[in-house]
Amino acid sequence: MELDDFQHLMQTTYGARDATRGIPATVAWLAEEVGELARAVRKQTPAEQLHELGDTLAWLSSLANQLGLSLGDAAARYARGCPRCGHSPCSCP
Amino acid sequence: MELDDFQHLMQTTYGARDATRGIPATVAWLAEEVGELARAVRKQTPAEQLHELGDTLAWLSSLANQLGLSLGDAAARYARGCPRCGHSPCSCP
Repeated sequence: MELDDFQHLMQTTYGARDATRGIPATVAWLAEEVGELARAVRKQTPAEQLHELGDTLAWLSSLANQLGLSLGDAAARYARGCPRCGHSPCSCP
Repeated sequence: MELDDFQHLMQTTYGARDATRGIPATVAWLAEEVGELARAVRKQTPAEQLHELGDTLAWLSSLANQLGLSLGDAAARYARGCPRCGHSPCSCP
């Protein structure tokens, strides 16, 4: 799936709720999801880890939507390799 | 950009470093990036917010790579609307 298509899907599915909730609460939910992902990584199954990866990605998309920013544009920072050293594989010290 | 292409790009650019660092340290870095994103949302510019969205997505991808899971598969959980109520827009109570 395209990053921006996923973000648009999140806008269609949750955009009205996101606007009502607001940005600070969305940041809080994202943090909560990252906590659930951390727990899944430590002691749950691959299926549960996949579930939490999806939820984290969904909240990241909701936040990007509310900020008016594109995850595709955000990903472009890495399109030419490591943004710090410019190489792929990264050759940062 | 396709989600799985981005994830593959992260594997090419950072896969060797990721494998050396290990999963628990990657979870810690992801948490740190979410903190930087939260700060950018609160008091920085859209360009800085975009930068932190990209970094968070990159660490999420690195984690998925180490878990052997696909972000595209993770996103598929939302392809038919809200995974809880099955609707888009979500109609959860």
